Amino acid sequence: MNDTKLTDIAAAVGVSVTTVSKALKGYPDINKDTRARIIEMAEKMNYLPNENAVNLRTNQTKTIGVIIPTTVHHFFSSVLNGILDEAEKRGYLVIILQSNEKYELEKKQISLLMQKRVDGILISLSNETDDFSHINAVLNKETPVVLFDKIAKMVHCSKVVIDDRKAAYDAVSYLIGKGYKRIAHFRGSLVPQNSIDRFLGYKKALEDHGIIFDPNLVFMCDHNTDFEDGYANAKKMVESQQEIDAVFAITDLVAIGIIKYLNEVEIKIPEQIAVIGFSNWFMSTVISPKLSTVNQPGYDIGFKAVSILIDEIIQAKNHVPIKHQTITLPTEIIERESTVRI
Amino acid sequence: MNDTKLTDIAAAVGVSVTTVSKALKGYPDINKDTRARIIEMAEKMNYLPNENAVNLRTNQTKTIGVIIPTTVHHFFSSVLNGILDEAEKRGYLVIILQSNEKYELEKKQISLLMQKRVDGILISLSNETDDFSHINAVLNKETPVVLFDKIAKMVHCSKVVIDDRKAAYDAVSYLIGKGYKRIAHFRGSLVPQNSIDRFLGYKKALEDHGIIFDPNLVFMCDHNTDFEDGYANAKKMVESQQEIDAVFAITDLVAIGIIKYLNEVEIKIPEQIAVIGFSNWFMSTVISPKLSTVNQPGYDIGFKAVSILIDEIIQAKNHVPIKHQTITLPTEIIERESTVRI
Repeated sequence: MNDTKLTDIAAAVGVSVTTVSKALKGYPDINKDTRARIIEMAEKMNYLPNENAVNLRTNQTKTIGVIIPTTVHHFFSSVLNGILDEAEKRGYLVIILQSNEKYELEKKQISLLMQKRVDGILISLSNETDDFSHINAVLNKETPVVLFDKIAKMVHCSKVVIDDRKAAYDAVSYLIGKGYKRIAHFRGSLVPQNSIDRFLGYKKALEDHGIIFDPNLVFMCDHNTDFEDGYANAKKMVESQQEIDAVFAITDLVAIGIIKYLNEVEIKIPEQIAVIGFSNWFMSTVISPKLSTVNQPGYDIGFKAVSILIDEIIQAKNHVPIKHQTITLPTEIIERESTVRI
Repeated sequence: MNDTKLTDIAAAVGVSVTTVSKALKGYPDINKDTRARIIEMAEKMNYLPNENAVNLRTNQTKTIGVIIPTTVHHFFSSVLNGILDEAEKRGYLVIILQSNEKYELEKKQISLLMQKRVDGILISLSNETDDFSHINAVLNKETPVVLFDKIAKMVHCSKVVIDDRKAAYDAVSYLIGKGYKRIAHFRGSLVPQNSIDRFLGYKKALEDHGIIFDPNLVFMCDHNTDFEDGYANAKKMVESQQEIDAVFAITDLVAIGIIKYLNEVEIKIPEQIAVIGFSNWFMSTVISPKLSTVNQPGYDIGFKAVSILIDEIIQAKNHVPIKHQTITLPTEIIERESTVRI
């Protein structure tokens, strides 16, 4: 960069470099008029204080790092929105990295962010991550970390989550309340906690309502847990000719794949098979029939996570002991056409 | 942060701070064994070189700033993906800011990024931006800027775009080739260049095929240019009782709003009215009928823009004169069900 330096301003105004430096820092021993002239000239010459030098003095970068598994899912776009809005308001810049669900990449990105001296890190863990020493290394350096959405219970830091097990339990209990009895579950892969928890919530709801759990009604969407997975498994479900009157899908994307297939083979939703999704993606209101779902508050998760992180950064800076907290944001059932028999 | 310092390493190994500093920088006048012991200890103690000090020495931050109007649109998620992938590969971190289509916020964010000493900036301009002095101020400081998607022709820097006018021309010519004659256009607001260009491409295609342009067939989706806008204007279009056999929509989101409304009032697509969108959003394959559209290569736009930016950063650093380039990426018509009469 072709930067204006203090010497340039000093030469232009005709004062010493020390005077310029003191004037810009607001020292009281500089004459008012001189100070005004210096500030005016600094603005005219587009002078920027050297941030790296400022960082060295204050040991703060006013920057936070965010690692998310992917930006493509609507859910993470909403989370990102919440993060960017609140960070902006509180004067922090946000470096965003995506781990593509890879543990090795996540580890490397944590180390990059630490080299960059970010003041704190927000992370939703990759599906592969089952060793947390890279996160603990950050915490050991007294740099705050807040985990959100995909967390690890054994890491000692603040967390912002939803109660996946309860949300799934509520969705399945809702279906049972509507009179559905043979309820299939389209689940995600075996590793991420949210996939496990949604499955457990499904199973518990059946049991609590006296419905025997049938493993044949569980379809594994572990390819990309997306639209294609839902479509392919809906085909498998229909061809299995089992008696099924409703489906609880792990995500709206999977649910939309199911709806697409059922529409194609002219199975009526919800008259023959009801469908409920998870996340309340915008598209769930656009598909026909409109998809009932569990609202997962992505924007609020991002907003809350960054808000706690910045609080902890300030506490760390002021040597106030940090009390970790786990915030569980509420979910709710959104009833639309795909579960309501007329 | 509770950092390991050079003095800590020096004390642990039992050598001077100068020796540690020289060893870590690879100076040849340090004994090999001593150097090995120092590096081992530095790793053991999780030593991180102070990036801010390194930045001061090299005058580089290996960080780039990205300003996008919004992260919520699928198109910008794809662009972001392309940016993050290529930046990662080339060792640059990415600070992301969203302007929410506001000029004042965009101006402030540019200034924040400059204070942060980013090595370069990628920006898609807000819909409000019609003064470019904030961008020119960056370029005047010899910090490279690459504009993408929403650009300003009069700013002298590299640009990555599609040819919106040609893409729209192709879409409308395609409809005419399919036998459609009364073609409506659902356009965006009057400011952004891409909205203007798509409208002009529509008009030119009609004229070149001997169809008289009828301003009554142009519907203004200038609320949020989204699903709701498409839905509301589709209602207006149907209620106007004009003879219309096809619609060219400015985005897939608007097109999906149109499809939703036409489905509700049982107007057959494409038998009564054909619909073509713009962007090739994933959802265009999921909606019924599947949406024909113009493929807008979001990932490639992001990838190419960051790639040019990093090249220019390296050129600027080495004082090689930068030759600005404008890359126009190709678009193509994707034919699906919404335009193909059986």
